[in-house]
Amino acid sequence: MNSLCELDKKELINRLRRIEGQVRGLQRMVNEEKYCVDILHQINAVQGGLKNVGLKILDKHVHGCVQRAVRNEEGDEIIDELMEVLAKFTD
Amino acid sequence: MNSLCELDKKELINRLRRIEGQVRGLQRMVNEEKYCVDILHQINAVQGGLKNVGLKILDKHVHGCVQRAVRNEEGDEIIDELMEVLAKFTD
Amino acid sequence: MNSLCELDKKELINRLRRIEGQVRGLQRMVNEEKYCVDILHQINAVQGGLKNVGLKILDKHVHGCVQRAVRNEEGDEIIDELMEVLAKFTD
Amino acid sequence: MNSLCELDKKELINRLRRIEGQVRGLQRMVNEEKYCVDILHQINAVQGGLKNVGLKILDKHVHGCVQRAVRNEEGDEIIDELMEVLAKFTD
Repeated sequence: MNSLCELDKKELINRLRRIEGQVRGLQRMVNEEKYCVDILHQINAVQGGLKNVGLKILDKHVHGCVQRAVRNEEGDEIIDELMEVLAKFTD
Repeated sequence: MNSLCELDKKELINRLRRIEGQVRGLQRMVNEEKYCVDILHQINAVQGGLKNVGLKILDKHVHGCVQRAVRNEEGDEIIDELMEVLAKFTD
Repeated sequence: MNSLCELDKKELINRLRRIEGQVRGLQRMVNEEKYCVDILHQINAVQGGLKNVGLKILDKHVHGCVQRAVRNEEGDEIIDELMEVLAKFTD
Repeated sequence: MNSLCELDKKELINRLRRIEGQVRGLQRMVNEEKYCVDILHQINAVQGGLKNVGLKILDKHVHGCVQRAVRNEEGDEIIDELMEVLAKFTD
């Protein structure tokens, strides 16, 4: 992920820390037998946060690595690899 | 989540602990500037894990709380609430 | 789907007709070699429309069939069946 | 979609015709008041078919249009546009 500037890196790690805290919060909710629907809303929030981190990394990857590879005539391989991870990400 | 037996509770918390560890792993990957596509695969794995936890809780909720509410003639309200969280969960 | 009143039925069929028209529009777009990103936006629109039809049918199913089954002490089977289709719907 | 050869075009249109037939089948199912869960399974099938068409078009777009744009130093704009449609596609 060498196309990531220090600023982006810090922001991504901060977001992932928040997600980690939310996952710990989920453990607490399960442990304290909170209402299922509230737990499900919290899971949706974590999923949304993770999706946004994924889209940010995807954006960096395509703008950075993929563009560089295309310029070095190695675009097709890196795009095949990208499509494979995208097929799962869109599940 | 009073329809959750102790066994299920333990299993859910274990799964969430594993997910927490994976999210910490993601922070490490970003920090060490691992390859974006590897990070994206890891994000997919976490999403899959969270989805499974969500489905498990959903299952408990419908088998437990929803059935009880229906028997007490309070089904419609709890089902409206369920549909609302499902609409987001299917995003 | 015996819990569907005539009004809902008509509305669902109208929505599905619109989706059918959009899918025919997609064929035209591919045939006329329209810009890929425009085709993708149109696919997103169709997916959104289908998801809404699915949520509407789900809502009718849970309010109708599932409630009836629970009252007849046949809730667990119908809920297992529901969870199975939900696991795919959330993909 | 000028990066689409005739063979791919035919295959995509065939897939979309099958999807159109499935959507007509859904209208029939609703009209004949088939069982909700069967309708939901059919909706899942159509969603899966559409997703595959979307991934195929995405693949062609990135291999074709995006690579060409990068080579012409117009990569950043086309990648921003791509990320925008991806953000919706992953919903």
